[in-house]
Amino acid sequence: MTERPNHLAFQCPIPIQEYPTILLAHGGGGRLTQMLIERMFWPTFRNPALETLHDGAVLEVGGVRLAFTTDSFVVSPLFFPGGDIGELAVNGTVNDLAMCGARPLYLSLGLILEEGFPMEDLWRVVRSIQEAAQEAGVEVATGDTKVVDRGKGDGVFINTTGLGVIPPGIHVSPQWARPGDVVLISGAIAVHGIAILSVREGLEFETTLESDTAPLNGLVEVALQVAGPQVHVLRDPTRGGLSSALNEIASSAGVGIVLEEAQIPIWDEVKGACEILGLDPLYVANEGKCLAIVAPQAAEAALEALRSHPLGREAAVIGQVVEEHPGSVVLRSRVGGKRVVDMLSGEQLPRIC
Amino acid sequence: MTERPNHLAFQCPIPIQEYPTILLAHGGGGRLTQMLIERMFWPTFRNPALETLHDGAVLEVGGVRLAFTTDSFVVSPLFFPGGDIGELAVNGTVNDLAMCGARPLYLSLGLILEEGFPMEDLWRVVRSIQEAAQEAGVEVATGDTKVVDRGKGDGVFINTTGLGVIPPGIHVSPQWARPGDVVLISGAIAVHGIAILSVREGLEFETTLESDTAPLNGLVEVALQVAGPQVHVLRDPTRGGLSSALNEIASSAGVGIVLEEAQIPIWDEVKGACEILGLDPLYVANEGKCLAIVAPQAAEAALEALRSHPLGREAAVIGQVVEEHPGSVVLRSRVGGKRVVDMLSGEQLPRIC
Repeated sequence: MTERPNHLAFQCPIPIQEYPTILLAHGGGGRLTQMLIERMFWPTFRNPALETLHDGAVLEVGGVRLAFTTDSFVVSPLFFPGGDIGELAVNGTVNDLAMCGARPLYLSLGLILEEGFPMEDLWRVVRSIQEAAQEAGVEVATGDTKVVDRGKGDGVFINTTGLGVIPPGIHVSPQWARPGDVVLISGAIAVHGIAILSVREGLEFETTLESDTAPLNGLVEVALQVAGPQVHVLRDPTRGGLSSALNEIASSAGVGIVLEEAQIPIWDEVKGACEILGLDPLYVANEGKCLAIVAPQAAEAALEALRSHPLGREAAVIGQVVEEHPGSVVLRSRVGGKRVVDMLSGEQLPRIC
Repeated sequence: MTERPNHLAFQCPIPIQEYPTILLAHGGGGRLTQMLIERMFWPTFRNPALETLHDGAVLEVGGVRLAFTTDSFVVSPLFFPGGDIGELAVNGTVNDLAMCGARPLYLSLGLILEEGFPMEDLWRVVRSIQEAAQEAGVEVATGDTKVVDRGKGDGVFINTTGLGVIPPGIHVSPQWARPGDVVLISGAIAVHGIAILSVREGLEFETTLESDTAPLNGLVEVALQVAGPQVHVLRDPTRGGLSSALNEIASSAGVGIVLEEAQIPIWDEVKGACEILGLDPLYVANEGKCLAIVAPQAAEAALEALRSHPLGREAAVIGQVVEEHPGSVVLRSRVGGKRVVDMLSGEQLPRIC
């Protein structure tokens, strides 16, 4: 074996005593994921694109502003109420492009299949990818397929990487949240996570709760049409939920955020399931909702625009950006109390996407 | 579970009786991989970019010609003589961009980690990714980390997707091989595959055989500088080896290819290992070699240019494009016999990259 002494010259930036191995929570989108990113990935790969804490990189190539974003999907089960891993893989990356203010154009598709995976299941996933791509208006431009031996994978893992173009005049980024800005959400929270968990735990509701997976580029477009440069931040609160997404924004922009619990749309059956399962819906993943942080003078127009779109009918103003408590998110409860809502620590829902 | 009847309306395009499940060979880069691509992926995702059978897609965005390519890496073992999965993941995608005639600019990085993966191994891989990116002159612009439960992955799988820009005047594509063109290879074949297999099988040589993994963008650049538009095809013969790559080109361009066995550079120790292992070196993966198919008047200049570069010192003319036997590759042996060399069928070396 070749020795590569340069590898050994730098100590691992994660405390090995505390974290000798990777835990499920390192992939949960919360505090441990953040630790990997901030201590290991940023200092190693350091470059401006990576460090904006955006849902994707914004790159200028030949005078064109491109958005470039990647996501791997390892959801279990592969087929769930309201969707499957294929649809999720398309929508997830389309949405990350949309959250950069980009018009999604192309996807790459990387499949890691496990030996023994039923061919008809692959076909079902592939068709689902194409249907979702068509709905979102993107093309699968390039792909790769690998197969791992039985017991070294789990049916299929999917990576999609997306490429989009950002129109002139649009500049959205987590760091641009400003005190006074209004926080909007496009619809009811925690639906995807609870839909997945209901299947896993065999929970029964009167009606089947379906994942909210959907392409958000159309919804974002209507908001940008009316509020354009006054849309400062867009973000889809997936892994780690609403709370982790808002904490990232607060920390990135150096501002505080106050949430009004009573204003946050949540369906009764989702709330009930969260109570049964002991989950805080603020930390449960969404796959078809977006946060928009907009200048106060544009908030009303943005809200109306979101509500005019089929995916934004339940859009609501849920909070405000403030100067106080920079880096923190505070929830004002229905009865007037206040509590800090932190990033997800640990892992409450592994393999949700 | 939601029924999605549209999935059921289309029959699986792979014969289920024959292939009820995914086999390792579906990921081997040979005949079964090709069957998935031609019967399932192309007809489903149909679009011009996908169908060029290139190492990546060539896209025009805002007047700029971009190359866009993806690869997942599942090599086993993760660390091997001459490299590791991190270095391979960077070089593999950099090379696919270079084979489109592009200058590689950015990579995305998708990690799928298995719970329990040693943190120090992750650190070693991450540093290796950065060193390789630096050597190739690309930036890791965006990333994603997922964790799967123990026993559902294999340490780490890596997806890299690359973005590059194609300079004006450069048009390389497998379909542009023309009768009379000369086939060049940049160096000795089958090194990577045999290096990996030697570790797996515990073969001992007098010196350790190291993988040839390397970024080929610099090498390609010197060839394009002297031969520019007369370079018709570039291709790095990875999975499936020299033979599968040339078969793809012959089929894509509707031409025949004649190879001169005596001209194909191969190291004695690699030849010896192939004999011991019962492998045909024409089907063994390379990770630091490229094929260039150039117009006859530029062949001499291209060969000299390749040989002037440290990664091309053993470059050689190995064959010619012909009008006869379109779609087929024929090998003329040392003793004058001829045989058709087909695509790899089955899987001789699983998880080689």
